[in-house]
Amino acid sequence: MTASVPTQPDWLTAPVPADLLALDARDPLAHKRAEFLLPAGTLYLDGNSLGAMPAAVPERLARVAQQEWAQALIRSWTAGAEMNLDWMTLPDRVAAKIAPLIGARAHEVAVGDSTSVNLFKVLAAAMRGTERRVLLTDADNFPTDLYAAQGINGLLGDTWDLRRVPGAEIGQHLTPDVGVLLLTEVDYRTGERLDMAALTNRARENGTLTIWDLAHSAGAFPVDLNGCGADFAVGCGYKYLNGGPGAPAFVFVAERHHHVPPVLSGWMGHADPFEMARDYRPAPGARRYVVGTPQVLSLSALDTALDVFANVDLNELRRKSLSLTGTFMRLMEPLTAQFPLTLVTPTEAERRGSQVSYRHPEAKAVMARLTGRGLIGDYRTPDILRFGFTPLYHSHADVFRAAEGVAATLREGSGA
Amino acid sequence: MTASVPTQPDWLTAPVPADLLALDARDPLAHKRAEFLLPAGTLYLDGNSLGAMPAAVPERLARVAQQEWAQALIRSWTAGAEMNLDWMTLPDRVAAKIAPLIGARAHEVAVGDSTSVNLFKVLAAAMRGTERRVLLTDADNFPTDLYAAQGINGLLGDTWDLRRVPGAEIGQHLTPDVGVLLLTEVDYRTGERLDMAALTNRARENGTLTIWDLAHSAGAFPVDLNGCGADFAVGCGYKYLNGGPGAPAFVFVAERHHHVPPVLSGWMGHADPFEMARDYRPAPGARRYVVGTPQVLSLSALDTALDVFANVDLNELRRKSLSLTGTFMRLMEPLTAQFPLTLVTPTEAERRGSQVSYRHPEAKAVMARLTGRGLIGDYRTPDILRFGFTPLYHSHADVFRAAEGVAATLREGSGA
Repeated sequence: MTASVPTQPDWLTAPVPADLLALDARDPLAHKRAEFLLPAGTLYLDGNSLGAMPAAVPERLARVAQQEWAQALIRSWTAGAEMNLDWMTLPDRVAAKIAPLIGARAHEVAVGDSTSVNLFKVLAAAMRGTERRVLLTDADNFPTDLYAAQGINGLLGDTWDLRRVPGAEIGQHLTPDVGVLLLTEVDYRTGERLDMAALTNRARENGTLTIWDLAHSAGAFPVDLNGCGADFAVGCGYKYLNGGPGAPAFVFVAERHHHVPPVLSGWMGHADPFEMARDYRPAPGARRYVVGTPQVLSLSALDTALDVFANVDLNELRRKSLSLTGTFMRLMEPLTAQFPLTLVTPTEAERRGSQVSYRHPEAKAVMARLTGRGLIGDYRTPDILRFGFTPLYHSHADVFRAAEGVAATLREGSGA
Repeated sequence: MTASVPTQPDWLTAPVPADLLALDARDPLAHKRAEFLLPAGTLYLDGNSLGAMPAAVPERLARVAQQEWAQALIRSWTAGAEMNLDWMTLPDRVAAKIAPLIGARAHEVAVGDSTSVNLFKVLAAAMRGTERRVLLTDADNFPTDLYAAQGINGLLGDTWDLRRVPGAEIGQHLTPDVGVLLLTEVDYRTGERLDMAALTNRARENGTLTIWDLAHSAGAFPVDLNGCGADFAVGCGYKYLNGGPGAPAFVFVAERHHHVPPVLSGWMGHADPFEMARDYRPAPGARRYVVGTPQVLSLSALDTALDVFANVDLNELRRKSLSLTGTFMRLMEPLTAQFPLTLVTPTEAERRGSQVSYRHPEAKAVMARLTGRGLIGDYRTPDILRFGFTPLYHSHADVFRAAEGVAATLREGSGA
C-alpha cells in the first residue's frame, strides 16, 4: 500500500562533500531527526505541504482511541487533570504550545478548525472593526485567503472592495481607504518572505488592521506577532508544525481585539459550555474563537507533534534553515545555466522562508520524475518546482543529495 | 489512567427477567455489539453524547498515521484510488455513507468541520435565500444553534429578528414573516422528537426555509430529509454515528439550493483545488461546503465507524430503539412513585428519539453516584438525568440492569 520507490537511488549514495558533513557534525539540531519517522529510500522535501510524522504520534493516537475514548468515554471531557482526562482544555493547551512559536501570548491563540475557517473568523472580526470598506491583499495570495474574503463579502452584499494587487506593490496601495490588509508572510510558490514588521507598522500608521497568514512561517522560523504589532493571524498545523494531514489550524487575536464577539460563535467558545445558556457569552480571551467540539483525534496528534519544539531555539532553527536553503541554491546554481531552470526564491536571507523554488517549463513532469525516484518535492501551477527544507529533520547531506537528484533527473530528461 | 470502577457492581449481576432475555434472543441486531469495544464492568448509556468506539477504529488510525502519513506522505492526497491513497475524496466517500442514513442523496451531503460551523454555513445559505428577516427557533434549542444564529446576525448588523418560542408553540408562530425555521429534531434534554414531516410541510407552505439539526437523529433512527422536503440540515458525527470525540460533522443542502455560493468558501470546496485559481469557483453539489483541508485522522475514524451501519436495516434499528426505551420507561415507572423522579420523555413512540430523561431535584448528584458505580448516563442542567440507548450495542438485559442500577442508587441515596 505504500508507494514503491527504489530503496537506494544513485543520488542517495553519492559521497557528500566534507564541508557539508562538517556543518552537519556541528549542527545543534541534528538530534531532532530521531524524533521523526521518515520513509527509507526517500528524501522528503515537502514538509511545507505536509510535515513528516513525529514518531511519538501513533502511540498517542492509540492511547486516545483505546483508553480515553473507548474506556473512559464521556468522562474524558470533564474528569479533569486529576485523571489526566481533559479534552475540554486540550485546545488551550495546544494553543499555549503554539504561542511562543509566533510571538503571541497563550490567551491570544485559539486552536481548531481549518485555516480557511479561521480566516473567516478573523476577516469577520477585522471587517467589523473598521468603518472603511477596502480590503487589500496580494493578488497571488494563497487561493483560500482570497476565497474567504470573497465569501464573507458575498454575505455582506458585496459592500467591500477587495483590492488585489501584486505583492511587490502592497506598500504603495496602502491608501487611507484601506481598512484591512490580508497577507501571507511567505509566498507558497516563490518562498518569498514579506517584511512583516515594516508592513504591519505602515498599516498601523495608516489605520489599517492587519491579518497575517502564517501557513509557511509558524515552525519554520521565529515569528513575532506582538513585536510587530499585528492585529490578527491564522496558521496551519500540518506544515512546519507537523501535526498530521489536515491538522487543526490556529488563530491569533491580539488582546486589544478580544472585546469583539466572534461571528462564528459556538458552545465550545462559550464562557461556560455546560451552563447551556440561551445567550452566547464569550469565553475569556481567544478561547472564544474555538467554535464547536474540537476534533480530538486530530488535535491530540498535533499536541504530541508540538512537543518536538519544546527545547528548540527558534533562532538556531532559523540559522540552520537559511544554511540549508542557501546551500541548496548554491549547489543548484550550475544547473540553472545548463537547463531551463530559473530560481524564483530571493537569495537575500531576510527575504526568504524555508523553501526554494524554481520555474521550469516542464515543472509538472520533472516533479513527477523526481517523486518517482524518491525525491519528493512539490509542483505548483503553472511551472513551479518547490523544495521545502525543515531544519528539524534535514541535514546538509540531504541538501547535497537533493541537488544531486535534481541534476540526475534533469540530465536524464534531456537525454544527456 | 482509565477511570477505576467496580468491576462487578451488584446491579450488573442481577438476574434478567426471562421476557427480556427472550427479546434479546430474537434481536436481529444483537450481533452488532461485537463490533464495538466497550469497557468491562460499565454500562454506558451516553452514546448520545459520545458514541462508543467501533473496534475497527484503532487499526485504521494506526494505518493512516504509520502508512498514509508517515510513509506515503504527501502522495496520500493525490496518488488516487489505484494506490488506495485518496484523501482528496475522503470527505465525499464519508458523505456517501451518511446520505442513506438521513434520506439524502450523496451529492447533497458534505462532511467536515463541526456542527456549529456547519450551522453557520446553512444559516448563511438560508438567510440569503429569503427576503424575510425573521428566524424562528425553539427557545430550548441546543445552545450552539442559538449562538450560531446570534453570531451571523451580529455580522449582518442585527438586521434579523431571532424569534425564540417554546417548542410546543412553533406551529402557531409560523407567521408569513418567518423566513427561516431552525429546529433540532430531538430535544437534547427531554428526548422529545418533533414531527419533522409535518413541520417542514407547514414551513414550505408558508414560504419558510427549514434547517434541521439532526444531532440526536442521525444513526438513531431513519431520517428522511428529502421525503420531508427539508431544505438544509446539519448533524453530528460523534453521537449515534460513533465517529469519535469531536468527529467531523455533516451538512445537508437540498439540490435545489446548490446554486447558492457558500459563504465559508475555501480551497477544498473549489471545483479544482490544485488549479490555485484566484477566483472561487464552487465544486459541484454539496462538496462546495467542504471548506479547508479536512482533519484526516478524525475523518478516517468516522469513515471506519460508519461501516458499522453498512448492513443495518434502519427500520429494524428504530424498532429495537423503541423497544429499549419503552422497556426502560416501564421498568422505571415504579421508581417515579417512590422518588422525586419525573419522566419528561414522551411515551408515544413517534414523539421520542432514542433517549429517556427524568427530572430529579438532585440530578447532578444522582448522576455522579451512578457514574461512580459504572452506570454512565448524563446530567443536563438544570435537573435532567439523561439515558441514551443505542440499538447497535445495547440489549434489553442492559436496560434491565440500568433500571436496577438507578433503583439501587436512589435507594442508597434516600437511606432506604
